[in-house]
Amino acid sequence: MTPGAQHPDGPAAQPLRSDAERNRERIIAAARTVFGRDGLGASMASVAREAGVGIATLFRRFPTKDDLFDAVFSDRMDAYADAVTTALENPDPWQGFTGYIEAACAMQAADHGFADVLTTTFPGAKAMEKRRNEAYEGMVRLIDRAKATGRLREDFDSSDLVLLHMANAGVVSATGDAAPDAWRRVVALLIQSLEAPARGPLPASPEHDALYQAMLRAGRADVTAPEPGKSS
Amino acid sequence: MTPGAQHPDGPAAQPLRSDAERNRERIIAAARTVFGRDGLGASMASVAREAGVGIATLFRRFPTKDDLFDAVFSDRMDAYADAVTTALENPDPWQGFTGYIEAACAMQAADHGFADVLTTTFPGAKAMEKRRNEAYEGMVRLIDRAKATGRLREDFDSSDLVLLHMANAGVVSATGDAAPDAWRRVVALLIQSLEAPARGPLPASPEHDALYQAMLRAGRADVTAPEPGKSS
Repeated sequence: MTPGAQHPDGPAAQPLRSDAERNRERIIAAARTVFGRDGLGASMASVAREAGVGIATLFRRFPTKDDLFDAVFSDRMDAYADAVTTALENPDPWQGFTGYIEAACAMQAADHGFADVLTTTFPGAKAMEKRRNEAYEGMVRLIDRAKATGRLREDFDSSDLVLLHMANAGVVSATGDAAPDAWRRVVALLIQSLEAPARGPLPASPEHDALYQAMLRAGRADVTAPEPGKSS
Repeated sequence: MTPGAQHPDGPAAQPLRSDAERNRERIIAAARTVFGRDGLGASMASVAREAGVGIATLFRRFPTKDDLFDAVFSDRMDAYADAVTTALENPDPWQGFTGYIEAACAMQAADHGFADVLTTTFPGAKAMEKRRNEAYEGMVRLIDRAKATGRLREDFDSSDLVLLHMANAGVVSATGDAAPDAWRRVVALLIQSLEAPARGPLPASPEHDALYQAMLRAGRADVTAPEPGKSS
């Protein structure tokens, strides 16, 4: 592992040499394509292939797949966390709540890789997980506010947001470019189902720990070891 | 292509030699595992690997991937078509309609490969597509009956069933064994959203042709050519 591999990210970071920076950007763009197309389980080797760099170069820049996830999706996760903040600022808690759902689902539709990131947890992707946790705390407040007005059904659980995003990920990945707005209809149906008064009881929510295990499981992917001596 | 490859399937078919039959069953079981785990885009080579047979043996038995889909999923598709028939026999059209949704979604949860099959079209898998078309005709009647009683919202479109199954596939594939019943809650929400009177308007349905393109696209997968001279 070279010192460069642990180089901090973000605008305040010391600039990398420009060819290194170009490599980094090329890898990130390639990873976005590959994760969007093949899912988050895609191998590091296929990211290197798409980027046209050697696997050793990829691992030098991103020692683990979680480091790569962090680099590829942290801006998306920032935008997601910002959507929660915006929703909390809405003076109408129900509008804030439903607006958040629409905004977050639109982010899933715009980036299929991110669609899965929203329902997957990567304990090693520290920056991204920190933002996710902040967003989660905001979401709990969003839910409480929407319930307090009586517009959101009482049996709504924060885990339902995860399930809703899993459902939306299924729609956006299956419809893709062929029917790029189809998800809007499903999300509209789901939002209508959440409005109080509830039309009936619901099966129990999954245990939060079970759902966390599901989110963890989706992120478990083989990390291909670098091929010795191969670089670019 | 050997004559055996075009051997008719089903109870009335002339029995294959027992070792050939065992190979066939092993391939089908392996394909079920691979498609369930890696999606319908999994390669023929990975099915052969999982089955422990040579790729040439696989292609001799199943000359195209659609032939393999037919063999792996036609019993599921039969059960699915039967669920539509059962639903149409229910004296309460709304109960029939919602019972069908629950039954079909349960089939998706029980077999993740089949979860995608329900929202994917394989023009070459003749037997399966014939059953699907029969089921579709039954679903249209199911929808008409449920609307006639006033229980199903008027703006419900047959394409909404496809979207609903895409959403459910997203939930079952993301939750998997960790939270195997989570889909029931999402499906219950969706069913509640379908009950008349509608709580609000919906974004337009995707064009049927666009949705067909999406269903076609999901089934497009690379078919690996047999490696010459390799058999088992």
